[in-house]
Amino acid sequence: MTDSLHRPALDLAGIPSESKTGYPAEFLARVAGRTRKSLGRTLGLSDFGINLTELQPGAQSALRHWHRHEDEFIFIVSGELSLITDAGEQLLRPGQCAGFPKNVPDGHHLVNRSNAVACYLEIGCNHPDEEAFYPDDDLHFKRSDGFFTRKDGSRAK
Amino acid sequence: MTDSLHRPALDLAGIPSESKTGYPAEFLARVAGRTRKSLGRTLGLSDFGINLTELQPGAQSALRHWHRHEDEFIFIVSGELSLITDAGEQLLRPGQCAGFPKNVPDGHHLVNRSNAVACYLEIGCNHPDEEAFYPDDDLHFKRSDGFFTRKDGSRAK
Repeated sequence: MTDSLHRPALDLAGIPSESKTGYPAEFLARVAGRTRKSLGRTLGLSDFGINLTELQPGAQSALRHWHRHEDEFIFIVSGELSLITDAGEQLLRPGQCAGFPKNVPDGHHLVNRSNAVACYLEIGCNHPDEEAFYPDDDLHFKRSDGFFTRKDGSRAK
Repeated sequence: MTDSLHRPALDLAGIPSESKTGYPAEFLARVAGRTRKSLGRTLGLSDFGINLTELQPGAQSALRHWHRHEDEFIFIVSGELSLITDAGEQLLRPGQCAGFPKNVPDGHHLVNRSNAVACYLEIGCNHPDEEAFYPDDDLHFKRSDGFFTRKDGSRAK
């Protein structure tokens, strides 16, 4: 469908899909099927970020992680996605959602285990002191560093 | 459908629908068919607020307004809603969205002109100095006042 929306509404067809990630090379395959449209940035919003993110079959939203200083929220728009946390796995369908309060040390991510593309909204803020923890991988992120490190503090490439 | 999601996922069926508003009595009819589920608050998020809001036929999301200090974003989940701004009216369908950057003096609201219930996500932050402007109505809001006023500054009841 071609729509003809104008601001403050957004014509999604006109927004580029981005696949960029800052992860070190060894993790790139896990998010290779992930593309994002930056709705919030495109609309000129700065209080929070909103992406419409698409996961191909097999792709992950991110490495399993939790945030020190940033709340995160996801809402399933289409398809089915498995939410993985310390407690195990739950299947989320369109209209279902999940939220990850900052500083709760329960790593989470979404994995598309289905045979169809799935799409979700992800919402969060950028905190200057943000630090992210990766329970399953030898990785750590501190925004003030400007790059990913290993758990021993050495730079990850 | 009964789901059996557990935190950090949210079972929407278990969240109460709220119809409260702080508007003065003369405006209550316009939002009488509006109910909200506070997803963000229920999930323990504080960086931003997220409501899943339902509008019955004829109901409005709010009086037409704009915010001084708060960005706002809406995403249509089901049904059809008319977005009204200074430029006129646009029909938004599921998967379409709009964003309202703070301090842009273009009053906006959603009106359900259809014969079916419509549902959307609304996202925003609470700024302590927030002030809201209502181009079509004799109304003004300043959070530090704690109540609505008329445009002449007198308290609106």
